[in-house]
Amino acid sequence: MPPDPSTLHGGSLLLAWQLKDKHVLIVGGGDVASGRIESVLVADAHITLIVPRSGLHPLTQHFLTAAPDRITHHDRVFAGPQDLDGVDMVLTAIDDVEASRHICALCRERRIPVNVADVPPSCDFYFGSQIRSGPLQVMISTNGRSPKLANVIRRRIEACIPEHAADAIERVGELRTKLKERAPGVGGEVGKRRMRWMVDICSSWDMEDLAMLDDKMMARLLDEGWEKNQVPKLEDVGGKRERAADRSATQASSVLPTVLGFAAGAACTALVFLARRP
Amino acid sequence: MPPDPSTLHGGSLLLAWQLKDKHVLIVGGGDVASGRIESVLVADAHITLIVPRSGLHPLTQHFLTAAPDRITHHDRVFAGPQDLDGVDMVLTAIDDVEASRHICALCRERRIPVNVADVPPSCDFYFGSQIRSGPLQVMISTNGRSPKLANVIRRRIEACIPEHAADAIERVGELRTKLKERAPGVGGEVGKRRMRWMVDICSSWDMEDLAMLDDKMMARLLDEGWEKNQVPKLEDVGGKRERAADRSATQASSVLPTVLGFAAGAACTALVFLARRP
Repeated sequence: MPPDPSTLHGGSLLLAWQLKDKHVLIVGGGDVASGRIESVLVADAHITLIVPRSGLHPLTQHFLTAAPDRITHHDRVFAGPQDLDGVDMVLTAIDDVEASRHICALCRERRIPVNVADVPPSCDFYFGSQIRSGPLQVMISTNGRSPKLANVIRRRIEACIPEHAADAIERVGELRTKLKERAPGVGGEVGKRRMRWMVDICSSWDMEDLAMLDDKMMARLLDEGWEKNQVPKLEDVGGKRERAADRSATQASSVLPTVLGFAAGAACTALVFLARRP
Repeated sequence: MPPDPSTLHGGSLLLAWQLKDKHVLIVGGGDVASGRIESVLVADAHITLIVPRSGLHPLTQHFLTAAPDRITHHDRVFAGPQDLDGVDMVLTAIDDVEASRHICALCRERRIPVNVADVPPSCDFYFGSQIRSGPLQVMISTNGRSPKLANVIRRRIEACIPEHAADAIERVGELRTKLKERAPGVGGEVGKRRMRWMVDICSSWDMEDLAMLDDKMMARLLDEGWEKNQVPKLEDVGGKRERAADRSATQASSVLPTVLGFAAGAACTALVFLARRP
C-alpha cells in the first residue's frame, strides 16, 4: 500500500554528504569538536580549525599532531567573514552562544551549510550516532529527541551487523567496477541488465561468500555468470566454503542443553534405581 | 586508544538534513523520484515537482493526489535558472544525462545542494538505505559500493531494533522538554546536570519502561528524581512492569531443552531398569 502522506512528517532527510577535497571550517577544539574532526576526516575533507591553543582537547591535539597535512590550525578565535572564504561547510562547537549565532548568520548569508553544536535553530543539519566499518556507515538519528537512546540503539545495531559485511561491500564494489569496465554505458538497457545481475548475485550469495571474492574469482564470475547471464555458486568460480564447522558449533549451543539434560536425567534415575537395589 | 587518522578516509559525512519549511525542487516523476518525494515529505519540506504528466509514476501520482497542499506540480520539463528561484535543495531523477548536468551546474553556481540520481560526480550528497520508525531514523550507506547490500543490511538492522524504541524516544523527548522548562538555560552547569540526569535515566531504565512514561509519571519522575538528584525506578513513579510473564517465557526457551532432556533421560533409564527387573 502506498504511504499515507499525513504520516510523513517530523523527520529529517538523512544524507551521506560528500566532502572529498572540500574545505570544512571547525570553530572550537573541545570534546565535541574532536568528534567533528574525526567525522570530517573520514569524509576526506581539508579541515581548518580555529581555536586558541588553550582550548585544545587532548583528542583534538592528537589529530593536529597525527594529521598535520589534513588540518590547518589557527591559534585564535573566529575573526570575521574573511574566515569563511573558500569554505564549503562550517561546524562550530564553542560555549559562546552569541559568537555562534553570529557565525551562523554569516554562513546563511553565504549559503554555507552550518551546524552550531547544541543550538538546533542554528543548524542546517544534525549529527546522529554513527557506526563505521570500512565502506559501511550507519547513522542513527532520534531527530534531536534523545542522543543517549541513539547511542543505546547504535550498540544494539552494531551487534547485529553481519560479521563479513564490510568485506562483502568492498568486494561487491570492486565487482561492480569490473562489470562496468566490461559492459560500459550510463543508464539504458545495459545499465538495467548490470543492475539486475548485481542484485541477483547479492541476493543469492551469503555475505560471507561475497567477502571471499578475490580478483581471480571475480574474473570467473564475470566469465561464467555475466557473459552467460546466470548466477554461478561460490564453488563454480573456484571458491570454497569453510563454514560447516562453524555452523555445527552454532547448532551445538541449542543441542547441548538437551543432551546434558538427558545425561543428567539418566544418571539421576540410574542412581535412584541402583540405590533401591536389594 | 585515539583513532589513527590514516585509517580515517573514503567515507561520507552522514547527516540529518533539516528541511522544515524549506523548498525542495524535484525534477522527474518516475520510480526514483517517488522515493525522493517520500523522503522529503518526511522532512516537512515544500516540494515543487517538475515533470510532464506523462512521466508520472503511479506512486508519484498518489503523492500528488494525496498531498496537493505539500507538492506543487508543473506539467513540463525543467525550463531554466528561473526554476531555481527560492529553492533550497534540488533532486533530479531524469534519464536525460545532459539536462541533469546542466541543472547541476546551475545549482553549483548558486550554492544550492544538489543530487543527480545515478551520476555521482553531480551529487553533493548521496541517499542511503533508510529505516523510519516514528522519531527514529536510521540510514545505511555503503558509500556507493552496493545499494543492494545496503538493503540486505537494512533488513537485518530493522529486525534488531528494540520493539519499543520509537515510543521510548518519543517519551524521552517529552521528558527532556519538560525538564528544560523546569530547569531552563543553555549550556553551563544546569545544562550539564540536565544532560547527566537524562543519561542516567536512559541508562538505568529499559526501553520498554521508558516507552510507558505518561504525563503523570513524568511529573513524578521530575519531582522524585530530578529535584532530589536521583534515579527512581518505574514503580517509584507509579509505573507497573508487565513483563514478568514475557521474561519467564523467554527464559523457558533455554531452560526447556534441559528440562525435556532431563525428563527423557530419566524416563529412558527408568525403562531400562524396569525392563531388567526380575
